[in-house]
Amino acid sequence: MQYTLLIDTNDQKGLIYKVTKILYGNGLNILSQQEFVDAESRRFFFRSELSGIANTDILESELNRTLKNANIHLTKKETKHIVIMATKEAHALGDLLIKHYSGDLDIAISAVVSNRESLRDLSEKFSIPFIYVPSDNLEREEHEQRIIEVIKKYRCDYIILAKYMRILTPYFVEHFPNKIINIHHSFLPAFIGANPYKQAHERGVKIIGATSHFVNNDLDEGPIIEQETLHVGHDLSWQEMRDRGRDVEKVVLSRAVKLVTEERVFVNENKTVIL
Amino acid sequence: MQYTLLIDTNDQKGLIYKVTKILYGNGLNILSQQEFVDAESRRFFFRSELSGIANTDILESELNRTLKNANIHLTKKETKHIVIMATKEAHALGDLLIKHYSGDLDIAISAVVSNRESLRDLSEKFSIPFIYVPSDNLEREEHEQRIIEVIKKYRCDYIILAKYMRILTPYFVEHFPNKIINIHHSFLPAFIGANPYKQAHERGVKIIGATSHFVNNDLDEGPIIEQETLHVGHDLSWQEMRDRGRDVEKVVLSRAVKLVTEERVFVNENKTVIL
Amino acid sequence: MQYTLLIDTNDQKGLIYKVTKILYGNGLNILSQQEFVDAESRRFFFRSELSGIANTDILESELNRTLKNANIHLTKKETKHIVIMATKEAHALGDLLIKHYSGDLDIAISAVVSNRESLRDLSEKFSIPFIYVPSDNLEREEHEQRIIEVIKKYRCDYIILAKYMRILTPYFVEHFPNKIINIHHSFLPAFIGANPYKQAHERGVKIIGATSHFVNNDLDEGPIIEQETLHVGHDLSWQEMRDRGRDVEKVVLSRAVKLVTEERVFVNENKTVIL
Amino acid sequence: MQYTLLIDTNDQKGLIYKVTKILYGNGLNILSQQEFVDAESRRFFFRSELSGIANTDILESELNRTLKNANIHLTKKETKHIVIMATKEAHALGDLLIKHYSGDLDIAISAVVSNRESLRDLSEKFSIPFIYVPSDNLEREEHEQRIIEVIKKYRCDYIILAKYMRILTPYFVEHFPNKIINIHHSFLPAFIGANPYKQAHERGVKIIGATSHFVNNDLDEGPIIEQETLHVGHDLSWQEMRDRGRDVEKVVLSRAVKLVTEERVFVNENKTVIL
Repeated sequence: MQYTLLIDTNDQKGLIYKVTKILYGNGLNILSQQEFVDAESRRFFFRSELSGIANTDILESELNRTLKNANIHLTKKETKHIVIMATKEAHALGDLLIKHYSGDLDIAISAVVSNRESLRDLSEKFSIPFIYVPSDNLEREEHEQRIIEVIKKYRCDYIILAKYMRILTPYFVEHFPNKIINIHHSFLPAFIGANPYKQAHERGVKIIGATSHFVNNDLDEGPIIEQETLHVGHDLSWQEMRDRGRDVEKVVLSRAVKLVTEERVFVNENKTVIL
Repeated sequence: MQYTLLIDTNDQKGLIYKVTKILYGNGLNILSQQEFVDAESRRFFFRSELSGIANTDILESELNRTLKNANIHLTKKETKHIVIMATKEAHALGDLLIKHYSGDLDIAISAVVSNRESLRDLSEKFSIPFIYVPSDNLEREEHEQRIIEVIKKYRCDYIILAKYMRILTPYFVEHFPNKIINIHHSFLPAFIGANPYKQAHERGVKIIGATSHFVNNDLDEGPIIEQETLHVGHDLSWQEMRDRGRDVEKVVLSRAVKLVTEERVFVNENKTVIL
Repeated sequence: MQYTLLIDTNDQKGLIYKVTKILYGNGLNILSQQEFVDAESRRFFFRSELSGIANTDILESELNRTLKNANIHLTKKETKHIVIMATKEAHALGDLLIKHYSGDLDIAISAVVSNRESLRDLSEKFSIPFIYVPSDNLEREEHEQRIIEVIKKYRCDYIILAKYMRILTPYFVEHFPNKIINIHHSFLPAFIGANPYKQAHERGVKIIGATSHFVNNDLDEGPIIEQETLHVGHDLSWQEMRDRGRDVEKVVLSRAVKLVTEERVFVNENKTVIL
Repeated sequence: MQYTLLIDTNDQKGLIYKVTKILYGNGLNILSQQEFVDAESRRFFFRSELSGIANTDILESELNRTLKNANIHLTKKETKHIVIMATKEAHALGDLLIKHYSGDLDIAISAVVSNRESLRDLSEKFSIPFIYVPSDNLEREEHEQRIIEVIKKYRCDYIILAKYMRILTPYFVEHFPNKIINIHHSFLPAFIGANPYKQAHERGVKIIGATSHFVNNDLDEGPIIEQETLHVGHDLSWQEMRDRGRDVEKVVLSRAVKLVTEERVFVNENKTVIL
């Protein structure tokens, strides 16, 4: 049996010793372990992959007793389930579908939810349930409420916004704290908001990029998980920048999905710690 | 009407003047133009995108008369047709299928040809003819002869080897000179031959990569079209390097397909000139 | 004799033909030529390196007669002279000094001008005049006026701000239009203004960068010449980001100096065209 | 007081627990800790930065008693001393001199040793002793013996080959096991041996690079510490590749010097583990 143990807590002397003592005492073998102390916040982050047979209740209560006020998260290692939200563009969704299909990414895709019909055909090629939730004549929160109801019917560890082109309200976000991952088509914080490629073209940048991040209540302001950039020249129109950028977007999103579903990403206030 | 004009010839004084004079005299407008002179070989390369109505026969004969012994290639701008050869891995084929499906790459995929059945399901999801050409009990050239016969049934401007895992003989290559594009999973010339990720892991490199190149008679030695690299650490197994490398492979291959089908790639002895 | 010819003008049919006809007619050989048409502004940019013996007055007047309202810039190829302005940090200045010393960059450094004494010793090691222009008790424009007077004593084709840490006023900038090149320590337009590394750290980005740009009247808003980025992790303090960023800063600045002094950079409204 | 503790040993259950127990028991605080288990060789690597007051003899003997057959390396944190060997090119040496001068790299440069006089002036500008050891009329080992004698006069934790252009014999290398760091001007293992830029140009690669590595007895085959790459096009001569490559070379070398002098690099057979 394999487990993942995540701990975050205020730093104190001897933490690693105390944790590994408990793991050792419970007969667990550490396959890999990473830890990080944020020098500013004095916060300690710990991730360990364990093998062995554990009574997880006993283990957790031992850890809780020893580390007061710590966030302790012990889970069996297993495939995570995602719901993908997308609108019109096929590249980010398509990449996740192919990686899921070929087993290159250890995820289960429960459903694709969209405010358009455009991607139904692509999703159904791969036998993934596609649910169209039109927004016509609906208030924004009403539309989101319908989406929430759809998502709740599926097993869903994370919601992946694979170029979902409507802004989500705090109402929606609060239902899934630290569970929504977005891909933004710029190297944030440059070019927040609409049509970042057009903004980039107008500014005459020599580098474009993409950013995957957790969604919180402030648009494009959530904790960044992964970023990548690409050189461009004066000879590209903004549409050509967008076309080239798509490869970066999909790669950055799928890397973030991999990191998050492998439980490697801690949220540390408005940043991430990746172990 | 739009045309692409490609010229390569020995360099001489006034070449650009002479060519543009003919284009201007024929009422053609130059949308974009690039030229390059190889300082070593004194070879001149020229690419122009033209708009207007031209009598291409007259234009070509004028160019031929003026530029003696030049390779002149004037074609209407149109979607190129490719045949993809692949074996088992889905990522490179899948990326081309998605880009073709979404229109992100202006290509027509005529068929997928394989020495295995593994990728039939994926190809047929996208309604692309899949032809299985088994190699069992066949001599290598006999097998290739069957593939050649299959390919000849389809419109095929370029053959794309999207992780086709059998070595092609000179017999096959000679049938399609400068028309076969391969993706090799290392930054050539490092790690020529079998299992480059395993070789890379054993050598302890900090960077892996992928290379797309024309196939000629020497294994992994053809003119390089595009390369990209990726940082790796000591903590990756060779299988993890392979998994991460796949995103690089597919991106490098599809960039090469784009460059080649846009007629931007000249072969200059064992190198490419990309205009 | 070698010349560089730069032209920018409104696009019109047959421009390349007309220009190359004049060059050919004057017996000049084109060593390399690049051109670009901005599809939005319909502006044509042309750069050519020429060899031969030319009567430059005749050549320029022929070009002016044929291309009405064009900016035509014909110069003998020769080493450009720069004045460097810097404040305290040694890396960007040091890199230019070493490249100048070793001949890796074809520039002449006329002087280093600074609002501090910190970099005198380094500059004088390389026998470059160092002029300290203190700002104490001076109005900003008064201080800048003194710097302008210093600079005017030297041969100066370009002013290079190698981490000069005072904001320049429009008064100063107007004296040297499109002649001042700055290095900003972020991938603009992210983190405009003071201490971009601290801003980057607070935002939790996974990529930092540097931008070289022409200085115009809006802070950090001038036409971008070159950018580069670098991956960073959660484990770096902002000071460590700054330390790593320095290598990127100096490389980006020296690439911009090379491009500009080779006369490859056109200013196209608020962007650059690099040929 | 700060210490660095390095351990490498065969993996066994409870290692982290046992080590941290001893550290905790000796009143030491762990500032940062990293560990890695090589899945193939089952080798465990551990690095910890510690603060506190320790009796290092007692601590080491406790660690040795608990971890049998382990390599244990406990040192006070302090500035490392290097001797630089170089030949003619100034960029790599110059970068180390500037970083040392400005304090951007926490090293002490004891001396520059060279088989040419070319770099004397540059070294002496920065008041670094320069020792010219001519090789005229000397057998290779005799020349190396003289260099060894020179080096032994200086405090020298690491020897940095900053473009030292003579091949070192096993005789020399054996004197400084895992203490010699070289910069090779290609992304090894591509283009081993002489003039890699010329080789790269002839092969028509689209990416060049540089590699820093420990020197062992096989030319360009030692454990790799750091690599970086750079895109190039068909328009560069090999001399232009070399000129652009120099920025990569110097950055890769100084990163390796930083990693090694911070005691972050373990040699794991023919690879490195960097913690």
